[in-house]
Amino acid sequence: MSVLEPAGGEEVKQAKEVEDAEKYSFMATVTKAPKKQIQFADDMQEFTKFPTKTGRRSLSRSISQSSTDSYSSAASYTDSSDDEVSPREKQQTNSKGSSNFCVKNIKQAEFGRREIEIAEQDMSALISLRKRAQGEKPLAGAKIVGCTHITAQTAVLIETLCALGAQCRWSACNIYSTQNEVAAALAEAGVAVFAWKGESEDDFWWCIDRCVNIDGWQANMILDDGGDLTHWVYKKYPSVFKKIRGIVEESVTGVHRLYQLSKAGKLCVPAMNVNDSVTKQKFDNLYCCRESILDGLKRTTDVMFGGKQVVVCGYGEVGKGCCAALKALGAIVYVTEIDPICALQACMDGFRVVKLSEVIRQVDVVITCTGNKNVVTREHLDRMKNSCIVCNMGHSNTEIDVGRLLNLSCSTVPTFVLSITATTQALALIELYNAPEGRYKQDVYLLPKKMDEYVASLHLPSFDAHLTELTDDQAKYLGLNKNGPFKPNYYRY
Amino acid sequence: MSVLEPAGGEEVKQAKEVEDAEKYSFMATVTKAPKKQIQFADDMQEFTKFPTKTGRRSLSRSISQSSTDSYSSAASYTDSSDDEVSPREKQQTNSKGSSNFCVKNIKQAEFGRREIEIAEQDMSALISLRKRAQGEKPLAGAKIVGCTHITAQTAVLIETLCALGAQCRWSACNIYSTQNEVAAALAEAGVAVFAWKGESEDDFWWCIDRCVNIDGWQANMILDDGGDLTHWVYKKYPSVFKKIRGIVEESVTGVHRLYQLSKAGKLCVPAMNVNDSVTKQKFDNLYCCRESILDGLKRTTDVMFGGKQVVVCGYGEVGKGCCAALKALGAIVYVTEIDPICALQACMDGFRVVKLSEVIRQVDVVITCTGNKNVVTREHLDRMKNSCIVCNMGHSNTEIDVGRLLNLSCSTVPTFVLSITATTQALALIELYNAPEGRYKQDVYLLPKKMDEYVASLHLPSFDAHLTELTDDQAKYLGLNKNGPFKPNYYRY
Amino acid sequence: MSVLEPAGGEEVKQAKEVEDAEKYSFMATVTKAPKKQIQFADDMQEFTKFPTKTGRRSLSRSISQSSTDSYSSAASYTDSSDDEVSPREKQQTNSKGSSNFCVKNIKQAEFGRREIEIAEQDMSALISLRKRAQGEKPLAGAKIVGCTHITAQTAVLIETLCALGAQCRWSACNIYSTQNEVAAALAEAGVAVFAWKGESEDDFWWCIDRCVNIDGWQANMILDDGGDLTHWVYKKYPSVFKKIRGIVEESVTGVHRLYQLSKAGKLCVPAMNVNDSVTKQKFDNLYCCRESILDGLKRTTDVMFGGKQVVVCGYGEVGKGCCAALKALGAIVYVTEIDPICALQACMDGFRVVKLSEVIRQVDVVITCTGNKNVVTREHLDRMKNSCIVCNMGHSNTEIDVGRLLNLSCSTVPTFVLSITATTQALALIELYNAPEGRYKQDVYLLPKKMDEYVASLHLPSFDAHLTELTDDQAKYLGLNKNGPFKPNYYRY
Amino acid sequence: MSVLEPAGGEEVKQAKEVEDAEKYSFMATVTKAPKKQIQFADDMQEFTKFPTKTGRRSLSRSISQSSTDSYSSAASYTDSSDDEVSPREKQQTNSKGSSNFCVKNIKQAEFGRREIEIAEQDMSALISLRKRAQGEKPLAGAKIVGCTHITAQTAVLIETLCALGAQCRWSACNIYSTQNEVAAALAEAGVAVFAWKGESEDDFWWCIDRCVNIDGWQANMILDDGGDLTHWVYKKYPSVFKKIRGIVEESVTGVHRLYQLSKAGKLCVPAMNVNDSVTKQKFDNLYCCRESILDGLKRTTDVMFGGKQVVVCGYGEVGKGCCAALKALGAIVYVTEIDPICALQACMDGFRVVKLSEVIRQVDVVITCTGNKNVVTREHLDRMKNSCIVCNMGHSNTEIDVGRLLNLSCSTVPTFVLSITATTQALALIELYNAPEGRYKQDVYLLPKKMDEYVASLHLPSFDAHLTELTDDQAKYLGLNKNGPFKPNYYRY
Repeated sequence: MSVLEPAGGEEVKQAKEVEDAEKYSFMATVTKAPKKQIQFADDMQEFTKFPTKTGRRSLSRSISQSSTDSYSSAASYTDSSDDEVSPREKQQTNSKGSSNFCVKNIKQAEFGRREIEIAEQDMSALISLRKRAQGEKPLAGAKIVGCTHITAQTAVLIETLCALGAQCRWSACNIYSTQNEVAAALAEAGVAVFAWKGESEDDFWWCIDRCVNIDGWQANMILDDGGDLTHWVYKKYPSVFKKIRGIVEESVTGVHRLYQLSKAGKLCVPAMNVNDSVTKQKFDNLYCCRESILDGLKRTTDVMFGGKQVVVCGYGEVGKGCCAALKALGAIVYVTEIDPICALQACMDGFRVVKLSEVIRQVDVVITCTGNKNVVTREHLDRMKNSCIVCNMGHSNTEIDVGRLLNLSCSTVPTFVLSITATTQALALIELYNAPEGRYKQDVYLLPKKMDEYVASLHLPSFDAHLTELTDDQAKYLGLNKNGPFKPNYYRY
Repeated sequence: MSVLEPAGGEEVKQAKEVEDAEKYSFMATVTKAPKKQIQFADDMQEFTKFPTKTGRRSLSRSISQSSTDSYSSAASYTDSSDDEVSPREKQQTNSKGSSNFCVKNIKQAEFGRREIEIAEQDMSALISLRKRAQGEKPLAGAKIVGCTHITAQTAVLIETLCALGAQCRWSACNIYSTQNEVAAALAEAGVAVFAWKGESEDDFWWCIDRCVNIDGWQANMILDDGGDLTHWVYKKYPSVFKKIRGIVEESVTGVHRLYQLSKAGKLCVPAMNVNDSVTKQKFDNLYCCRESILDGLKRTTDVMFGGKQVVVCGYGEVGKGCCAALKALGAIVYVTEIDPICALQACMDGFRVVKLSEVIRQVDVVITCTGNKNVVTREHLDRMKNSCIVCNMGHSNTEIDVGRLLNLSCSTVPTFVLSITATTQALALIELYNAPEGRYKQDVYLLPKKMDEYVASLHLPSFDAHLTELTDDQAKYLGLNKNGPFKPNYYRY
Repeated sequence: MSVLEPAGGEEVKQAKEVEDAEKYSFMATVTKAPKKQIQFADDMQEFTKFPTKTGRRSLSRSISQSSTDSYSSAASYTDSSDDEVSPREKQQTNSKGSSNFCVKNIKQAEFGRREIEIAEQDMSALISLRKRAQGEKPLAGAKIVGCTHITAQTAVLIETLCALGAQCRWSACNIYSTQNEVAAALAEAGVAVFAWKGESEDDFWWCIDRCVNIDGWQANMILDDGGDLTHWVYKKYPSVFKKIRGIVEESVTGVHRLYQLSKAGKLCVPAMNVNDSVTKQKFDNLYCCRESILDGLKRTTDVMFGGKQVVVCGYGEVGKGCCAALKALGAIVYVTEIDPICALQACMDGFRVVKLSEVIRQVDVVITCTGNKNVVTREHLDRMKNSCIVCNMGHSNTEIDVGRLLNLSCSTVPTFVLSITATTQALALIELYNAPEGRYKQDVYLLPKKMDEYVASLHLPSFDAHLTELTDDQAKYLGLNKNGPFKPNYYRY
Repeated sequence: MSVLEPAGGEEVKQAKEVEDAEKYSFMATVTKAPKKQIQFADDMQEFTKFPTKTGRRSLSRSISQSSTDSYSSAASYTDSSDDEVSPREKQQTNSKGSSNFCVKNIKQAEFGRREIEIAEQDMSALISLRKRAQGEKPLAGAKIVGCTHITAQTAVLIETLCALGAQCRWSACNIYSTQNEVAAALAEAGVAVFAWKGESEDDFWWCIDRCVNIDGWQANMILDDGGDLTHWVYKKYPSVFKKIRGIVEESVTGVHRLYQLSKAGKLCVPAMNVNDSVTKQKFDNLYCCRESILDGLKRTTDVMFGGKQVVVCGYGEVGKGCCAALKALGAIVYVTEIDPICALQACMDGFRVVKLSEVIRQVDVVITCTGNKNVVTREHLDRMKNSCIVCNMGHSNTEIDVGRLLNLSCSTVPTFVLSITATTQALALIELYNAPEGRYKQDVYLLPKKMDEYVASLHLPSFDAHLTELTDDQAKYLGLNKNGPFKPNYYRY
């Protein structure tokens, strides 16, 4: 089915779907009908909201939307009442008379502004960065072309970049994930944004092109999420790279492609892999999944956790988060692992390490977090008990080997987690833009540990956490700079 | 506002609202606008679903509905397309030609049947009771008049009572909580059910009356939830009590009124207080709230729990459940208490015991579970930090002292918890109906411990839990009957 | 063997041994020798410290001793160097010239005083009670005869009673548990104490007799621990009961005997069962065992908890404490239960409920906390894997059915727990002594809940816990007195 | 005082003391006397056992000794009754007539053998390695000179090396840590062991020399713990390095010195740093400290954890373990940190991050795990409340800035943890000995991840853990070898 098996040929998109899947949980309930045929109950409500051919891409993004829905659900519903004219054919101007954007409806700007203001409350780290660096404008002269999800949280990032001196042109990295009212607010504020919810394939590339291909303005920084923008520039405007000081890439897929370019000797500017920074990783995986596994299961199935037998496939950061949360709420948790070190960790944390086939008959919930494929096979499905819940928390949408499984995304990503990512992106841009010549070559770099620590430190005030400072004497004793970095690069946290 | 201050005069209803509130969480976010006025953000989406004058009653029940929505949301939406003729004016017959019911639309029966079947899967205890007792029919001859929420879960209870030999007539204890398709399925199955979603005040009492006041059939058992049915019989048909062998009452309010009747010497039949049975209490409070506090907060606010400072007012069973769950997910939890024993428990469980005023400035979330009034005062609200979340998990809707707070219910009650309650009700009916004369006087009784234990034992198979049996020798050593009861009445569990 | 099977005939002593066992853990390791015979490795060191015929009685008490050993171990070892003259034959006077006592060596008084002072630091509740009530002297005129373990903690209790106006005469309830230096300090301070470590059977009763049978002083209150003193008065000086206002009894055994006397109509004064007060129970069982299971296992076996498979027999308060602690440290815990309600609690708390035989082959540790007999049988022992640890945390010394098991006590009871008990005893004495005539009949009473709450409140300051007070308005709303009691008697905490 | 400030000049020893300290907890109680002078109560019993000039070195090792004491305490005490002739002057032969050793008393061999057998039970990984590799004898031809603590656990390692084909000569890395009976058993079994408890400084180097400097036998592998053996060879017999294929070093200090040699270009053979292998690190720090903090505090102070306020300085692996355990047992835990990333982790794990001075007045326990110096200063000590417990779990013995603090070690290291280390050492020896020429240069290496994984896998059977194997298809999908390594080198576990 198309949901899981998007028609091939468009390699770029397919890769991205896999990646989007990684952050959220997908879920199905095995309902055995009297005749013991296997059926998969789907959540109609969710499904009918997004009855699209490409399916999954939109589903994964329904999340960040529903995340903001608690504040702004009204907006989504007014969309449908909008006229059906393509934004590309509309003539719109903002209140200052500028038409340097293309959004669904500029009139939604006020509502979008309120969304952004709400997001700012949970992204105090970015606001704090804005204030600290506003004077020196470390991005003065930066011309950033960006391609990300366009949500209230991204808007806070973009406006921070502007506050630090940058000029920005922005498109969406996903045809469904744009919050139209936020795009309108950005356009009203003077950002050159080209994005709307429900773009066609052609619209998608048109928007990207409009960001890059413009007279009298040439980007010198790229902020990408998924690699489509980078891909487009490579393909269409390779000469642009002459001015580019660096690429900042957030996604697993995009990073993977950068490493491939690098290996192939084709990477012609420095690139920063912000996906693998310590802080981002811990929040995207361990801390976020510790909460989202409960939220996702509860919203979709109303299952009571207490006393339930659960098997978690994979004991990496995602698996660790799932296991800890479920154990804490009274579930009996089993773990499967291929890696003996992670398996030993599972033992020491109080989980029995088993093969899936040993417990498949008795468990109430199966959760996959392996990044591997065919972890749950047809044979496993056949042996599950009736109403067993199958949930994919993993990187890959192929963890569960069924032709017709309807994976549905069902939990939200707290703004705080998005704040970590956005702050990391901003710092990576600042670092690459300001780095003395020669510090970065034509290669892929991890965020310097000191900046990783800085991202963390910007988020501490929201917990009213008070850091201890080293005395001169102590710093000397430890052989450290008083301002960090505090750990060697190989430190495991 | 009407939500919190229903127009007086109808004492019966008001009491019930308080009670319904007890099981669910109500929530608001304190958003301090630039001018420092306090505003309460409400969840529009939820609210617009139930735009009723009386408000709260429906909201609290929207829960069990949304609980089933994950399976059957379609149904709810078709309601609105229904014609607007009152069910009292419709002429409907089921497929066997009977018209002994009054529901919204008998044609929804098939869909309702599927809902009931799904509920049966999570109520295996009742099904098991059905099977064990089907042969001896312990309720043969019982004529039960019932007044409860009419949901898929209640239907499983009603049909169990029928399977054990009872005849049943049923109305709804709440004008908004009826699942129309379930009522239709019951009617189709031959149960005399009089209920629909959106009854008027007049409809409400008309339905109850139709259950009691019928030629050629006189009830000998009452199953009540809230005391309205009992109240009606007392007021209109006191002679019915001559035949009544007992009343089974589930709710806090209903039980309270029975105790008052008993004190006043007006209780003329035995009554069973199933609300305070050990098993039901633990599940309604500790186990259910341990999960629903997370679910409720997440669904409404998307708050990240890790690192949040939370104060929980009250360390009873509800408070204990909330504290345990939040601590497990990385929140820093403070407790307020008036009772030194509970306060000492909080200390030993690792929570600092403070006065609310000591921490009100620093906390991110305030949760009340006291059953008391004015626990959070205007003064506290004024000192909270911006975007502090205030959540009422308590018994009383007056815990938070504000005139215009919009309390919204936002979590679900797992079917498993409802199964505990329904099984307890069934056993109480069997006990009262079959008790030898003289065992129960005109008083309010708790469920015998042995039956409480039986309720628990019926639910163990769903956890694949294997009970150990005493040997004769051990039973003698302990001075116990091998089949229980296993604990003295004062045992604290 | 004598350790577990003390020679019959002396019913009084045997009962006490059982009871003493209840608070501590007893342990053995199953070591399967090459020929697969079962042997029990004993902890030589512990054992050789107390090489007594009666064995167990001393062992169970070695605990509170070792508890103080960390402060004062020197003292214990100097004992052995003491002369071998019986205290009964020594002529000793304290510094004020009084000889109204009989202890091992009055010269140890100074050292004993230091022990008492250290204990006072952890018993601030008693000190606080001393201060609050010192003015009104609620025990003025009270003549208390006591029979308890004589330790630094008891001394704090005795001196508190004196400070509140009482006169005290004291003997030991166990022939091995007296801390000689503490007895000396009490004697030096003017308390008529008759006790030393290593009394003979004859000495034991002689000491009790010296407390009761004295010219010109007649007891009007009894504080007993085990019932031996009460038994002696009943048998030898029944007329003393004419003046006795009440008996306060702490132990399971003593309370059991009082209930038997009451049933038989032979109880001729009011008696207070302080064993079953809420606060004492929670601390003696749940809170104390949560810590002592880890301590006991670690000290005796150095077992690493992480990843160990453990089965806990019995999920009462003791079992709950053990399970919670072991789970928290990474053990995989199974539970056996006979009571379906407790079994269901175990499920909801995340433990698989099994029969012992299902897991006996695979577990690394077996812990019994049932109070039942023959819970672990020879057959189970035969099937255990090599080096499986068997540990008795239970009430009964017969939980493990082996002829030659060497049970060894190995953990300590924190002074804080003893403080709870001592405060409860003091308040019970005050209540009984000051109760208006007629409040208490010739029956066994539980401590009034208000005093139970008072015990708790006296211990809150040591946690810097701040209790919230009800407003007049709230108290009225809840129908409570502002000063408590705050809960109905049947409340489960 | 000498305990903390060993006379300078012998740099080698001093470094080791610091390192030994790292694994154990050191503790003191702040007792404020009436005059408010600060005194530190020391645990007399522990202290008088080891009344040595150098003090600390022995104390830290008293641990692994006491670890085995539960099985064999008798032996330790008989030592003292031994004759006082130096082993160097004794003429001893084992039962096969060999005199190629120097131990305290060869007659203790039988008892030592039993100790080794008991240790083998908890070191099944080594036994398993012995069996798997016994056929191919991967150490055939290896001539290993070793210098480690000589305990039952080390004996299992040495005999495993022999079983795999190696010849071994062994001395002790610490003058107090040798278990004489174990050394005797090794000598009886034919190992050339030169070590006894209570060596003089001169004895220490004499023993090392006897291992290295022998006619007709030249070592080709070095196994060192602390670097003394390596140091001796560098200084006295540099030509030996011509034949040495590699050095395996376990300790922090020894590894530090190897890196210094390497930096200075003086390292002339490959060296393997086994200290920093993932598996060893996790067990030495996180898992071991999670248990030992409870054990150490309980044994020395009998403190009740429930409700205690504790501040943990440092949130690395050791701090994480301490915090998790204390939180689980009901303590209220605060954290101090200098590193914002670790601070953010502490927040997300539910701990308030504070400066020490903010909480020093209120806490009951202070635990340092920083590796830094002067973390607790005189000023902090002055502000602590009476009877506050101060405990050093850290790497450095200078964390607490007092002149005369008596640090005492008080917990044990489970054999299982030592098994991890020993297995890692064995595999490192096998790897270095068998590596094809050129794989390792004159540098310091971490254990290859695959061997780290192998260490873990050897320990899984003791948890009955079942690893899942990749299918060919999955391995290909993930780009992994089916047998590992399964993670990139930078993976954080």
